[in-house]
Amino acid sequence: LPPTDQLDRVVIVLMAPRNPLNIGAAARAMANFGFSHLTVVAPYEPHWREAQSAVGAEALLQNARRTGSLAEAVADCTLVLGTGTLEHRKPEQPVLLLPELASHLRGHRAPGRRVALVFGPEKHGLTREDLSYCHHLLVIPTAPQQPSMNLGQAVAVCLYELATRLAVPEHEIPSEPATLNQPPASAADLHRLAGVVEETMQAAGYSPAAMRAANRHDLDLLLRRLTLNAPDATRLLGLFRRILWRLRH
Amino acid sequence: LPPTDQLDRVVIVLMAPRNPLNIGAAARAMANFGFSHLTVVAPYEPHWREAQSAVGAEALLQNARRTGSLAEAVADCTLVLGTGTLEHRKPEQPVLLLPELASHLRGHRAPGRRVALVFGPEKHGLTREDLSYCHHLLVIPTAPQQPSMNLGQAVAVCLYELATRLAVPEHEIPSEPATLNQPPASAADLHRLAGVVEETMQAAGYSPAAMRAANRHDLDLLLRRLTLNAPDATRLLGLFRRILWRLRH
Repeated sequence: LPPTDQLDRVVIVLMAPRNPLNIGAAARAMANFGFSHLTVVAPYEPHWREAQSAVGAEALLQNARRTGSLAEAVADCTLVLGTGTLEHRKPEQPVLLLPELASHLRGHRAPGRRVALVFGPEKHGLTREDLSYCHHLLVIPTAPQQPSMNLGQAVAVCLYELATRLAVPEHEIPSEPATLNQPPASAADLHRLAGVVEETMQAAGYSPAAMRAANRHDLDLLLRRLTLNAPDATRLLGLFRRILWRLRH
Repeated sequence: LPPTDQLDRVVIVLMAPRNPLNIGAAARAMANFGFSHLTVVAPYEPHWREAQSAVGAEALLQNARRTGSLAEAVADCTLVLGTGTLEHRKPEQPVLLLPELASHLRGHRAPGRRVALVFGPEKHGLTREDLSYCHHLLVIPTAPQQPSMNLGQAVAVCLYELATRLAVPEHEIPSEPATLNQPPASAADLHRLAGVVEETMQAAGYSPAAMRAANRHDLDLLLRRLTLNAPDATRLLGLFRRILWRLRH
Protein backbone atom coordinates (compact mmCIF):
# COMPACT_ATOMS: atom_id res chain seq x y z
CA LEU A 1 0.00 0.00 0.00
CA PRO A 2 1.17 3.56 -0.67
CA PRO A 3 2.50 5.87 2.09
CA THR A 4 -0.12 7.06 4.56
CA ASP A 5 0.05 10.70 3.41
CA GLN A 6 -1.15 9.64 -0.05
CA LEU A 7 -4.22 7.92 1.39
CA ASP A 8 -4.84 10.59 4.04
CA ARG A 9 -5.72 13.22 1.47
CA VAL A 10 -8.69 11.13 0.31
CA VAL A 11 -12.00 11.45 2.13
CA ILE A 12 -14.80 8.93 1.62
CA VAL A 13 -18.23 10.59 1.64
CA LEU A 14 -21.39 8.50 2.08
CA MET A 15 -24.46 10.45 1.02
CA ALA A 16 -27.54 9.62 3.13
CA PRO A 17 -26.77 5.92 3.61
CA ARG A 18 -29.66 3.83 4.93
CA ASN A 19 -28.45 0.33 5.68
CA PRO A 20 -26.21 0.03 8.77
CA LEU A 21 -24.57 -3.09 7.32
CA ASN A 22 -23.49 -1.08 4.29
CA ILE A 23 -22.08 1.73 6.43
CA GLY A 24 -20.14 -0.86 8.44
CA ALA A 25 -18.93 -2.58 5.26
CA ALA A 26 -17.76 0.74 3.80
CA ALA A 27 -15.80 1.50 6.99
CA ARG A 28 -14.34 -2.01 7.05
CA ALA A 29 -13.08 -1.61 3.46
CA MET A 30 -11.51 1.74 4.42
CA ALA A 31 -9.64 0.03 7.26
CA ASN A 32 -8.58 -2.82 4.94
CA PHE A 33 -6.99 -0.42 2.47
CA GLY A 34 -5.56 2.12 4.94
CA PHE A 35 -7.99 5.04 4.53
CA SER A 36 -9.15 6.89 7.62
CA HIS A 37 -11.31 9.89 6.70
CA LEU A 38 -15.01 9.11 6.53
CA THR A 39 -17.77 11.71 6.26
CA VAL A 40 -21.42 10.76 6.43
CA VAL A 41 -23.98 13.21 5.06
CA ALA A 42 -27.46 13.30 6.60
CA PRO A 43 -27.53 9.71 7.85
CA TYR A 44 -30.75 8.18 9.13
CA GLU A 45 -30.10 8.52 12.86
CA PRO A 46 -31.02 5.10 14.34
CA HIS A 47 -29.18 3.22 11.58
CA TRP A 48 -26.14 5.42 11.96
CA ARG A 49 -25.92 4.67 15.67
CA GLU A 50 -26.28 0.95 14.94
CA ALA A 51 -23.59 1.07 12.25
CA GLN A 52 -21.05 2.66 14.58
CA SER A 53 -20.29 -0.70 16.15
CA ALA A 54 -19.16 -2.39 12.89
CA VAL A 55 -16.57 -5.07 13.56
CA GLY A 56 -13.04 -4.09 12.63
CA ALA A 57 -13.76 -0.42 12.04
CA GLU A 58 -14.95 0.92 15.39
CA ALA A 59 -12.32 3.69 15.69
CA LEU A 60 -12.88 4.83 12.13
CA LEU A 61 -16.65 5.09 12.66
CA GLN A 62 -16.25 6.86 16.01
CA ASN A 63 -14.04 9.45 14.33
CA ALA A 64 -16.30 9.84 11.29
CA ARG A 65 -17.45 13.34 10.49
CA ARG A 66 -21.17 14.07 10.12
CA THR A 67 -22.50 16.89 8.02
CA GLY A 68 -25.95 18.05 7.03
CA SER A 69 -25.12 18.66 3.38
CA LEU A 70 -22.83 17.45 0.62
CA ALA A 71 -21.57 21.04 0.12
CA GLU A 72 -20.32 21.06 3.73
CA ALA A 73 -18.83 17.57 3.41
CA VAL A 74 -16.63 18.45 0.43
CA ALA A 75 -15.95 22.12 1.27
CA ASP A 76 -12.20 21.64 1.86
CA CYS A 77 -11.70 19.30 -1.11
CA THR A 78 -10.04 20.37 -4.35
CA LEU A 79 -11.28 17.44 -6.41
CA VAL A 80 -14.72 15.89 -5.94
CA LEU A 81 -15.54 12.60 -7.65
CA GLY A 82 -19.11 11.31 -7.62
CA THR A 83 -19.55 7.58 -8.20
CA GLY A 84 -22.28 6.18 -10.41
CA THR A 85 -23.14 4.15 -13.47
CA LEU A 86 -23.82 5.32 -17.00
CA GLU A 87 -27.18 3.45 -17.16
CA HIS A 88 -30.24 5.67 -17.48
CA ARG A 89 -28.03 8.71 -17.37
CA LYS A 90 -26.48 11.12 -19.80
CA PRO A 91 -23.62 12.37 -17.69
CA GLU A 92 -23.26 16.13 -17.23
CA GLN A 93 -19.70 15.78 -15.92
CA PRO A 94 -16.66 14.33 -17.67
CA VAL A 95 -16.56 10.58 -17.03
CA LEU A 96 -13.56 9.00 -15.33
CA LEU A 97 -13.34 5.21 -15.44
CA LEU A 98 -12.14 3.65 -12.18
CA PRO A 99 -9.09 1.93 -13.75
CA GLU A 100 -7.88 5.43 -14.81
CA LEU A 101 -8.40 7.00 -11.38
CA ALA A 102 -4.91 6.54 -9.92
CA SER A 103 -3.11 8.00 -12.92
CA HIS A 104 -5.59 10.90 -12.91
CA LEU A 105 -4.83 11.58 -9.23
CA ARG A 106 -1.08 11.58 -9.81
CA GLY A 107 -1.48 15.06 -11.28
CA HIS A 108 -3.16 16.07 -8.05
CA ARG A 109 -0.58 15.22 -5.38
CA ALA A 110 0.69 18.61 -4.27
CA PRO A 111 0.32 19.55 -0.58
CA GLY A 112 -3.09 20.84 0.38
CA ARG A 113 -4.96 18.93 -2.31
CA ARG A 114 -7.80 16.89 -0.98
CA VAL A 115 -9.90 14.43 -2.93
CA ALA A 116 -13.47 13.39 -2.07
CA LEU A 117 -14.94 10.10 -3.31
CA VAL A 118 -18.70 10.46 -2.97
CA PHE A 119 -21.07 7.45 -2.85
CA GLY A 120 -24.83 7.87 -3.22
CA PRO A 121 -27.64 6.26 -1.22
CA GLU A 122 -28.31 2.57 -1.85
CA LYS A 123 -31.62 2.97 -3.60
CA HIS A 124 -30.97 5.48 -6.37
CA GLY A 125 -27.37 6.66 -6.12
CA LEU A 126 -26.30 10.29 -6.41
CA THR A 127 -28.85 12.72 -7.81
CA ARG A 128 -28.21 15.20 -10.59
CA GLU A 129 -28.09 17.89 -7.91
CA ASP A 130 -25.51 15.93 -5.84
CA LEU A 131 -23.39 15.46 -8.96
CA SER A 132 -23.37 19.20 -9.63
CA TYR A 133 -20.82 19.38 -6.78
CA CYS A 134 -18.56 16.90 -8.55
CA HIS A 135 -15.76 17.49 -11.05
CA HIS A 136 -16.13 14.00 -12.52
CA LEU A 137 -18.53 11.10 -12.63
CA LEU A 138 -16.43 8.14 -11.49
CA VAL A 139 -17.68 4.95 -13.16
CA ILE A 140 -16.90 1.38 -12.15
CA PRO A 141 -17.04 -0.67 -15.39
CA THR A 142 -19.79 -3.27 -14.88
CA ALA A 143 -21.85 -5.67 -16.98
CA PRO A 144 -24.89 -4.06 -18.66
CA GLN A 145 -27.13 -6.89 -17.36
CA GLN A 146 -26.39 -5.96 -13.73
CA PRO A 147 -24.69 -2.55 -13.60
CA SER A 148 -25.67 -1.50 -10.09
CA MET A 149 -23.29 -2.47 -7.29
CA ASN A 150 -23.92 -2.98 -3.61
CA LEU A 151 -22.66 0.07 -1.66
CA GLY A 152 -20.12 -1.73 0.53
CA GLN A 153 -18.72 -3.59 -2.46
CA ALA A 154 -18.50 -0.43 -4.59
CA VAL A 155 -16.51 1.29 -1.82
CA ALA A 156 -14.20 -1.75 -1.50
CA VAL A 157 -13.53 -1.87 -5.24
CA CYS A 158 -12.76 1.88 -5.48
CA LEU A 159 -10.44 1.85 -2.48
CA TYR A 160 -8.65 -1.31 -3.64
CA GLU A 161 -7.98 0.36 -6.98
CA LEU A 162 -6.68 3.53 -5.35
CA ALA A 163 -4.60 1.81 -2.68
CA THR A 164 -2.86 -0.57 -5.06
CA ARG A 165 -2.25 1.83 -7.93
CA LEU A 166 -1.72 5.24 -6.32
CA ALA A 167 1.81 4.45 -5.19
CA VAL A 168 4.36 5.10 -7.92
CA PRO A 169 8.12 5.37 -7.70
CA GLU A 170 9.08 9.05 -7.37
CA HIS A 171 11.02 9.08 -10.66
CA GLU A 172 7.87 8.12 -12.57
CA ILE A 173 5.91 11.11 -11.36
CA PRO A 174 5.62 13.65 -14.15
CA SER A 175 6.29 17.19 -13.01
CA GLU A 176 3.21 19.35 -13.32
CA PRO A 177 3.12 22.01 -16.02
CA ALA A 178 3.99 25.48 -14.63
CA THR A 179 0.44 26.73 -15.26
CA LEU A 180 -0.82 24.10 -12.81
CA ASN A 181 1.53 25.06 -10.01
CA GLN A 182 -1.19 27.06 -8.28
CA PRO A 183 -3.35 25.13 -5.83
CA PRO A 184 -6.76 24.30 -7.27
CA ALA A 185 -9.86 26.04 -5.96
CA SER A 186 -11.57 24.15 -3.14
CA ALA A 187 -15.20 23.09 -3.30
CA ALA A 188 -15.98 25.85 -0.77
CA ASP A 189 -14.31 28.46 -3.05
CA LEU A 190 -16.43 27.28 -5.98
CA HIS A 191 -19.59 27.24 -3.90
CA ARG A 192 -18.99 30.81 -2.72
CA LEU A 193 -18.21 31.97 -6.25
CA ALA A 194 -21.32 30.29 -7.66
CA GLY A 195 -23.42 32.04 -5.03
CA VAL A 196 -22.11 35.51 -5.95
CA VAL A 197 -22.41 34.87 -9.70
CA GLU A 198 -25.98 33.69 -9.18
CA GLU A 199 -26.84 36.86 -7.24
CA THR A 200 -25.24 38.89 -10.02
CA MET A 201 -27.30 37.15 -12.68
CA GLN A 202 -30.44 38.03 -10.78
CA ALA A 203 -29.41 41.58 -10.04
CA ALA A 204 -28.67 42.01 -13.75
CA GLY A 205 -32.09 40.62 -14.66
CA TYR A 206 -30.44 37.74 -16.52
CA SER A 207 -32.07 34.96 -14.53
CA PRO A 208 -35.89 35.07 -14.25
CA ALA A 209 -37.31 33.24 -11.21
CA ALA A 210 -38.56 30.29 -13.31
CA MET A 211 -35.07 29.67 -14.69
CA ARG A 212 -33.19 30.23 -11.49
CA ALA A 213 -32.62 26.58 -10.45
CA ALA A 214 -31.70 25.50 -13.98
CA ASN A 215 -29.25 28.38 -14.40
CA ARG A 216 -27.63 27.63 -11.07
CA HIS A 217 -27.26 24.00 -12.03
CA ASP A 218 -25.57 24.92 -15.32
CA LEU A 219 -23.33 27.36 -13.48
CA ASP A 220 -22.26 24.66 -11.00
CA LEU A 221 -21.36 22.34 -13.87
CA LEU A 222 -19.45 25.07 -15.68
CA LEU A 223 -17.37 26.11 -12.68
CA ARG A 224 -16.19 22.52 -12.14
CA ARG A 225 -15.37 22.03 -15.81
CA LEU A 226 -13.09 25.08 -15.74
CA THR A 227 -10.79 23.57 -13.10
CA LEU A 228 -10.05 27.00 -11.65
CA ASN A 229 -7.08 27.39 -9.37
CA ALA A 230 -7.46 29.13 -6.01
CA PRO A 231 -6.15 32.56 -7.16
CA ASP A 232 -8.49 32.35 -10.22
CA ALA A 233 -11.43 31.74 -7.93
CA THR A 234 -10.44 34.62 -5.62
CA ARG A 235 -10.02 36.96 -8.58
CA LEU A 236 -13.39 36.03 -10.08
CA LEU A 237 -15.07 36.33 -6.72
CA GLY A 238 -13.68 39.87 -6.35
CA LEU A 239 -14.82 40.78 -9.85
CA PHE A 240 -18.39 39.54 -9.38
CA ARG A 241 -18.66 41.13 -5.94
CA ARG A 242 -17.68 44.43 -7.54
CA ILE A 243 -20.21 44.01 -10.37
CA LEU A 244 -22.91 43.06 -7.89
CA TRP A 245 -22.20 46.13 -5.73
CA ARG A 246 -22.40 48.32 -8.85
CA LEU A 247 -25.67 46.77 -9.95
CA ARG A 248 -27.19 47.42 -6.56
CA HIS A 249 -26.05 51.01 -6.18
CA LEU B 1 -15.39 -5.67 -19.75
CA PRO B 2 -13.56 -8.40 -21.65
CA PRO B 3 -15.33 -10.83 -24.03
CA THR B 4 -17.58 -13.38 -22.30
CA ASP B 5 -15.37 -16.35 -23.20
CA GLN B 6 -12.54 -14.85 -21.15
CA LEU B 7 -14.74 -14.59 -18.07
CA ASP B 8 -16.49 -17.92 -18.66
CA ARG B 9 -13.35 -19.92 -18.03
CA VAL B 10 -13.20 -18.60 -14.46
CA VAL B 11 -15.17 -20.38 -11.74
CA ILE B 12 -15.74 -18.81 -8.34
CA VAL B 13 -15.61 -21.37 -5.53
CA LEU B 14 -16.98 -20.54 -2.07
CA MET B 15 -15.70 -22.98 0.52
CA ALA B 16 -18.27 -23.73 3.26
CA PRO B 17 -19.77 -20.22 3.41
CA ARG B 18 -21.96 -19.53 6.45
CA ASN B 19 -23.60 -16.14 6.06
CA PRO B 20 -26.38 -16.00 3.44
CA LEU B 21 -25.79 -12.27 2.97
CA ASN B 22 -22.20 -12.99 2.00
CA ILE B 23 -23.23 -15.69 -0.47
CA GLY B 24 -25.70 -13.27 -2.02
CA ALA B 25 -23.08 -10.49 -2.11
CA ALA B 26 -20.57 -12.79 -3.83
CA ALA B 27 -23.16 -13.71 -6.48
CA ARG B 28 -24.13 -10.07 -6.94
CA ALA B 29 -20.49 -9.11 -7.56
CA MET B 30 -20.22 -11.95 -10.10
CA ALA B 31 -23.24 -10.56 -11.96
CA ASN B 32 -21.80 -7.03 -11.79
CA PHE B 33 -18.57 -8.10 -13.46
CA GLY B 34 -19.99 -10.61 -15.93
CA PHE B 35 -18.97 -13.92 -14.31
CA SER B 36 -21.46 -16.79 -14.28
CA HIS B 37 -19.89 -19.97 -12.85
CA LEU B 38 -20.37 -20.32 -9.10
CA THR B 39 -19.59 -23.48 -7.13
CA VAL B 40 -20.41 -23.76 -3.45
CA VAL B 41 -18.62 -26.43 -1.41
CA ALA B 42 -20.42 -27.98 1.56
CA PRO B 43 -22.71 -25.04 2.35
CA TYR B 44 -24.74 -24.95 5.55
CA GLU B 45 -28.09 -26.03 4.12
CA PRO B 46 -30.64 -23.57 5.60
CA HIS B 47 -28.40 -20.57 4.88
CA TRP B 48 -27.75 -21.76 1.35
CA ARG B 49 -31.48 -21.96 0.65
CA GLU B 50 -31.96 -18.48 2.09
CA ALA B 51 -29.10 -17.07 0.02
CA GLN B 52 -30.55 -18.35 -3.24
CA SER B 53 -32.97 -15.45 -3.38
CA ALA B 54 -30.30 -12.71 -3.39
CA VAL B 55 -31.47 -9.64 -5.27
CA GLY B 56 -29.92 -9.21 -8.70
CA ALA B 57 -28.33 -12.66 -8.86
CA GLU B 58 -31.23 -15.13 -8.72
CA ALA B 59 -30.39 -16.95 -11.98
CA LEU B 60 -26.73 -17.23 -11.07
CA LEU B 61 -27.54 -18.75 -7.69
CA GLN B 62 -30.13 -21.13 -9.14
CA ASN B 63 -27.51 -22.40 -11.59
CA ALA B 64 -24.77 -22.64 -8.98
CA ARG B 65 -23.06 -26.00 -8.64
CA ARG B 66 -22.87 -27.71 -5.26
CA THR B 67 -20.16 -30.14 -4.31
CA GLY B 68 -19.23 -31.99 -1.17
CA SER B 69 -15.50 -31.35 -1.42
CA LEU B 70 -13.02 -28.83 -2.77
CA ALA B 71 -11.33 -31.60 -4.82
CA GLU B 72 -14.59 -32.17 -6.66
CA ALA B 73 -15.22 -28.43 -7.10
CA VAL B 74 -11.92 -27.79 -8.87
CA ALA B 75 -11.52 -31.15 -10.64
CA ASP B 76 -11.85 -29.71 -14.17
CA CYS B 77 -9.69 -26.63 -13.47
CA THR B 78 -6.14 -26.27 -14.72
CA LEU B 79 -5.19 -23.42 -12.38
CA VAL B 80 -6.47 -23.17 -8.81
CA LEU B 81 -5.93 -19.96 -6.86
CA GLY B 82 -6.72 -19.87 -3.15
CA THR B 83 -7.34 -16.44 -1.66
CA GLY B 84 -5.97 -15.40 1.71
CA THR B 85 -3.76 -13.01 3.62
CA LEU B 86 -0.14 -13.37 4.64
CA GLU B 87 -0.90 -12.65 8.31
CA HIS B 88 -0.20 -15.52 10.72
CA ARG B 89 0.82 -17.67 7.80
CA LYS B 90 4.02 -18.77 6.15
CA PRO B 91 2.68 -19.59 2.71
CA GLU B 92 3.43 -23.06 1.32
CA GLN B 93 2.44 -22.00 -2.20
CA PRO B 94 3.97 -19.28 -4.37
CA VAL B 95 2.24 -15.96 -3.61
CA LEU B 96 0.47 -14.06 -6.36
CA LEU B 97 -0.56 -10.48 -5.57
CA LEU B 98 -3.99 -9.54 -6.91
CA PRO B 99 -2.71 -6.63 -9.05
CA GLU B 100 -0.52 -9.21 -10.90
CA LEU B 101 -3.36 -11.67 -11.48
CA ALA B 102 -4.52 -10.59 -14.93
CA SER B 103 -1.04 -10.58 -16.46
CA HIS B 104 -0.44 -14.00 -14.88
CA LEU B 105 -3.64 -15.35 -16.45
CA ARG B 106 -2.73 -14.03 -19.90
CA GLY B 107 -0.33 -16.94 -20.17
CA HIS B 108 -3.25 -19.23 -19.43
CA ARG B 109 -5.78 -18.34 -22.15
CA ALA B 110 -5.66 -21.35 -24.44
CA PRO B 111 -8.89 -23.32 -25.02
CA GLY B 112 -9.76 -25.80 -22.31
CA ARG B 113 -7.98 -23.93 -19.54
CA ARG B 114 -10.16 -23.28 -16.56
CA VAL B 115 -9.27 -21.14 -13.56
CA ALA B 116 -10.76 -21.51 -10.06
CA LEU B 117 -10.75 -18.62 -7.59
CA VAL B 118 -11.33 -20.18 -4.18
CA PHE B 119 -12.60 -18.18 -1.18
CA GLY B 120 -12.52 -19.62 2.35
CA PRO B 121 -15.18 -19.53 5.04
CA GLU B 122 -15.80 -16.17 6.75
CA LYS B 123 -14.35 -17.08 10.10
CA HIS B 124 -10.91 -18.46 9.37
CA GLY B 125 -10.39 -18.52 5.60
CA LEU B 126 -8.91 -21.47 3.71
CA THR B 127 -7.11 -24.10 5.76
CA ARG B 128 -3.65 -25.45 5.03
CA GLU B 129 -5.37 -28.57 3.70
CA ASP B 130 -7.65 -26.53 1.39
CA LEU B 131 -4.62 -24.65 0.08
CA SER B 132 -2.85 -27.88 -0.80
CA TYR B 133 -5.24 -28.03 -3.79
CA CYS B 134 -4.08 -24.60 -4.95
CA HIS B 135 -1.26 -23.63 -7.29
CA HIS B 136 -0.95 -20.17 -5.77
CA LEU B 137 -1.98 -18.20 -2.71
CA LEU B 138 -3.74 -15.14 -4.13
CA VAL B 139 -3.25 -12.17 -1.81
CA ILE B 140 -5.19 -8.91 -1.81
CA PRO B 141 -2.77 -6.25 -0.53
CA THR B 142 -4.32 -4.84 2.65
CA ALA B 143 -3.27 -2.72 5.61
CA PRO B 144 -1.50 -4.67 8.39
CA GLN B 145 -3.81 -3.08 10.99
CA GLN B 146 -6.89 -4.69 9.38
CA PRO B 147 -5.81 -7.32 6.86
CA SER B 148 -8.93 -9.50 6.87
CA MET B 149 -11.63 -8.62 4.34
CA ASN B 150 -15.32 -9.29 4.37
CA LEU B 151 -16.12 -12.23 2.03
CA GLY B 152 -18.47 -10.38 -0.32
CA GLN B 153 -16.06 -7.47 -0.60
CA ALA B 154 -13.07 -9.74 -1.24
CA VAL B 155 -14.97 -11.43 -4.08
CA ALA B 156 -15.95 -8.03 -5.54
CA VAL B 157 -12.38 -6.73 -5.45
CA CYS B 158 -10.92 -9.87 -7.11
CA LEU B 159 -13.55 -9.92 -9.86
CA TYR B 160 -13.22 -6.19 -10.51
CA GLU B 161 -9.48 -6.63 -10.95
CA LEU B 162 -9.93 -9.57 -13.32
CA ALA B 163 -12.76 -8.05 -15.34
CA THR B 164 -11.07 -4.72 -15.91
CA ARG B 165 -7.56 -5.98 -16.57
CA LEU B 166 -7.99 -9.34 -18.28
CA ALA B 167 -8.96 -7.81 -21.60
CA VAL B 168 -5.93 -6.85 -23.66
CA PRO B 169 -5.69 -5.95 -27.31
CA GLU B 170 -4.80 -9.12 -29.27
CA HIS B 171 -1.48 -7.68 -30.49
CA GLU B 172 -0.29 -7.28 -26.91
CA ILE B 173 -0.76 -10.94 -26.08
CA PRO B 174 2.62 -12.64 -25.95
CA SER B 175 2.64 -15.98 -27.72
CA GLU B 176 3.30 -18.82 -25.32
CA PRO B 177 6.66 -20.55 -25.41
CA ALA B 178 6.52 -23.83 -27.39
CA THR B 179 7.15 -25.86 -24.23
CA LEU B 180 3.90 -24.52 -22.82
CA ASN B 181 1.80 -25.43 -25.83
CA GLN B 182 0.49 -28.54 -24.11
CA PRO B 183 -2.63 -28.09 -22.02
CA PRO B 184 -1.86 -28.02 -18.30
CA ALA B 185 -2.89 -30.89 -16.07
CA SER B 186 -6.31 -30.46 -14.50
CA ALA B 187 -6.86 -30.58 -10.75
CA ALA B 188 -8.48 -34.00 -11.20
CA ASP B 189 -5.36 -35.28 -13.03
CA LEU B 190 -3.17 -34.08 -10.17
CA HIS B 191 -5.47 -35.56 -7.56
CA ARG B 192 -5.42 -38.94 -9.30
CA LEU B 193 -1.64 -38.82 -9.67
CA ALA B 194 -1.16 -37.88 -6.02
CA GLY B 195 -3.32 -40.83 -4.98
CA VAL B 196 -1.22 -43.31 -6.96
CA VAL B 197 2.10 -41.82 -5.80
CA GLU B 198 0.87 -42.00 -2.21
CA GLU B 199 -0.04 -45.67 -2.59
CA THR B 200 3.36 -46.27 -4.12
CA MET B 201 5.12 -44.61 -1.20
CA GLN B 202 3.27 -46.87 1.19
CA ALA B 203 3.81 -50.00 -0.87
CA ALA B 204 7.53 -49.17 -0.99
CA GLY B 205 7.61 -48.73 2.79
CA TYR B 206 8.61 -45.07 2.33
CA SER B 207 5.72 -43.60 4.23
CA PRO B 208 5.09 -44.93 7.77
CA ALA B 209 1.52 -44.52 9.01
CA ALA B 210 2.44 -41.65 11.35
CA MET B 211 3.91 -39.64 8.48
CA ARG B 212 1.24 -40.44 5.94
CA ALA B 213 -0.81 -37.22 6.17
CA ALA B 214 2.28 -35.01 6.24
CA ASN B 215 3.83 -36.78 3.26
CA ARG B 216 0.62 -36.48 1.28
CA HIS B 217 0.43 -32.79 2.07
CA ASP B 218 4.00 -32.24 0.86
CA LEU B 219 3.24 -34.26 -2.25
CA ASP B 220 0.18 -32.13 -3.03
CA LEU B 221 2.26 -28.98 -2.72
CA LEU B 222 5.01 -30.39 -4.90
CA LEU B 223 2.70 -31.51 -7.70
CA ARG B 224 1.22 -28.02 -8.00
CA ARG B 225 4.61 -26.34 -7.93
CA LEU B 226 5.72 -28.43 -10.91
CA THR B 227 3.00 -27.03 -13.21
CA LEU B 228 2.75 -30.33 -15.07
CA ASN B 229 1.03 -30.37 -18.41
CA ALA B 230 -1.66 -32.98 -19.14
CA PRO B 231 0.63 -35.41 -21.06
CA ASP B 232 3.21 -35.13 -18.22
CA ALA B 233 0.56 -36.08 -15.71
CA THR B 234 -0.63 -39.02 -17.84
CA ARG B 235 2.93 -40.24 -18.28
CA LEU B 236 3.73 -40.02 -14.58
CA LEU B 237 0.47 -41.71 -13.69
CA GLY B 238 1.36 -44.62 -15.99
CA LEU B 239 4.84 -44.85 -14.49
CA PHE B 240 3.66 -44.95 -10.90
CA ARG B 241 0.89 -47.43 -11.69
CA ARG B 242 3.53 -49.71 -13.19
CA ILE B 243 5.81 -49.32 -10.14
CA LEU B 244 2.91 -49.97 -7.82
CA TRP B 245 1.93 -53.11 -9.70
CA ARG B 246 5.52 -54.34 -9.51
CA LEU B 247 5.74 -53.64 -5.78
CA ARG B 248 2.60 -55.65 -5.15
CA HIS B 249 3.44 -58.68 -7.27
